[in-house]
Amino acid sequence: MTIEIQALIIGAGPVGLFQVFQLGLLEINAHVVDALPHPGGQCVQLYPDKPIYDIPALPATTGRDLTDLLLKQIAPFSAPLHLGQEVTTVQPRTDGRFDVATSTGTQFITQTIFIAAGVGAFAPRKLKLEGMEPFEGSQVHHTTAQPGAWAGQRVVVLGGDDAALEAALQLAENSQVTLVHRRAAFDAAEPTQAAVQALIAAGRLQFVVGQITGFESAPRLAALHITTPDNTTQTIPLDHLLVCLGLSPKLGPLSTWGLDMQRKQLQVSPETFATSTPGIFAVGDINTYPGKKKLILCGFHEATLAAHAAAALIYPEQKVPLQYTTTSLRLHQLLGVA
Amino acid sequence: MTIEIQALIIGAGPVGLFQVFQLGLLEINAHVVDALPHPGGQCVQLYPDKPIYDIPALPATTGRDLTDLLLKQIAPFSAPLHLGQEVTTVQPRTDGRFDVATSTGTQFITQTIFIAAGVGAFAPRKLKLEGMEPFEGSQVHHTTAQPGAWAGQRVVVLGGDDAALEAALQLAENSQVTLVHRRAAFDAAEPTQAAVQALIAAGRLQFVVGQITGFESAPRLAALHITTPDNTTQTIPLDHLLVCLGLSPKLGPLSTWGLDMQRKQLQVSPETFATSTPGIFAVGDINTYPGKKKLILCGFHEATLAAHAAAALIYPEQKVPLQYTTTSLRLHQLLGVA
Repeated sequence: MTIEIQALIIGAGPVGLFQVFQLGLLEINAHVVDALPHPGGQCVQLYPDKPIYDIPALPATTGRDLTDLLLKQIAPFSAPLHLGQEVTTVQPRTDGRFDVATSTGTQFITQTIFIAAGVGAFAPRKLKLEGMEPFEGSQVHHTTAQPGAWAGQRVVVLGGDDAALEAALQLAENSQVTLVHRRAAFDAAEPTQAAVQALIAAGRLQFVVGQITGFESAPRLAALHITTPDNTTQTIPLDHLLVCLGLSPKLGPLSTWGLDMQRKQLQVSPETFATSTPGIFAVGDINTYPGKKKLILCGFHEATLAAHAAAALIYPEQKVPLQYTTTSLRLHQLLGVA
Repeated sequence: MTIEIQALIIGAGPVGLFQVFQLGLLEINAHVVDALPHPGGQCVQLYPDKPIYDIPALPATTGRDLTDLLLKQIAPFSAPLHLGQEVTTVQPRTDGRFDVATSTGTQFITQTIFIAAGVGAFAPRKLKLEGMEPFEGSQVHHTTAQPGAWAGQRVVVLGGDDAALEAALQLAENSQVTLVHRRAAFDAAEPTQAAVQALIAAGRLQFVVGQITGFESAPRLAALHITTPDNTTQTIPLDHLLVCLGLSPKLGPLSTWGLDMQRKQLQVSPETFATSTPGIFAVGDINTYPGKKKLILCGFHEATLAAHAAAALIYPEQKVPLQYTTTSLRLHQLLGVA
């Protein structure tokens, strides 16, 4: 089934969500696509509970709270969120609209597109070691297996952040686990670190400081070579390697849509936030223009002006006036507060 | 005493207040001047308790609440507010700074100026009737007298809004009051209207529908001519006239500072929000640039980019980097959350 819409927003971070609001005030209904399984984007993925102090009139908030507030604000517009899927193709149509498809097969025909993709879709950062590729998915993993799937097996967990330590703790219940991190200090919550140190002290978790510099295979992946800070090499036999090196943003297919890019950013006009392709706008951290600051509050402004520019495209017959939410009865109806 | 400062913000509305915050993050200390006796500007003056729905991540707020939140957010920077005074003169100095004076005699020497003056300073709207000027202050007033000052006298209250009706109610306790409004319907809160109607019914308040079209004086102001909707003229003898026609914004001396203006708005660059005079920036409803929308949230963005442009002027030796309030330890110190 193809969904025919006026506006597609790529990215459900704070700016993408506020884009729904500004389009809604102009009576443009939008759908939203995001690669992550939840709204909030980078904010919720990278710092859900850390305070943010520079959202105007919110002296202190968090990524999670900011997202919840924005979801509440856009609720009157009931914009469908298509989560856990990336936009893979954008094709201009002869009627001036765009064919858009996502990685899970959702298909849209849309009049306008708002790219609010931040620094790109987040994907697990990969271990860069030549010759490892054939083991991806069978012995080299980026997410931990179902509980018990590796029971009794030898597992190396690579990394020192919360995700790595939590995986090591969980796997140590059923598997022989070696935690490998490039330095002795971890970058994780205190209680998690303490639990890991306790397991190490009890001999139920091995810990090696060093980097993976080679491996043995015959033909399955059989052992890793770890080069330690004193430049000796240790060999660790294993059945599975779990790589927990964090998330890395990737622009993905966006870079192939033929838009004007400069250092991985989309050039836009500060009057309309339109890209070089009519009908495609870019707002938030993904865009650039003279004076650009990568701040959420600037993205809110950009989404507002982009919505007005889109209204001129979608409703070419009528001049869309700026109305105020405090006084406009029409806006009160749209917001459900009439 | 002359106050030497880095930045002077003219206007304590939401955008002027957030200007304090963005300058503070860049370690630029600011003072604020406003003509009104309280912070919050137009928002608090015109719609203190009406809901505002389009401040990002505040699904519903009011002018008063928004102001309180912003005051809380800028509290770490302890910016002095000089209220109840208008900036009257701005003079460039030979050292590149500006001499600034206010209507109450406060004097500043400042490196930069941020005009966040909205639609201008608010002043009571005057009755336009030739020959009335000589009675201003003695018999024609824009604010009500001390309670009892007009006791036993004949007072005409002109207007139909909350301020007019409340003044009529209060004055009717001691004076002979005639309320004059151009139409029979009032524009005021229900309970206030009901109280006025009750006084009229009881014969303790006269009400005339019409407009003041002339007057008699000999030599004091002795009577008003009121032309009613059926085109007859009524003569009302009086001692005092209280004009309650609302507030009207006026640009005031700003229009004489030699800045590039277009239809009472300051032309700015959307990269820096600088005016035609280096060192003077304009943010919020007072400025214009391609795509401009008069929205508070856009003013927040403008104040942010203007602050960065000012930092480049104030700290020419060092490139001022963009830091994030979530991660920067320096910003945590400045915000008092280290």
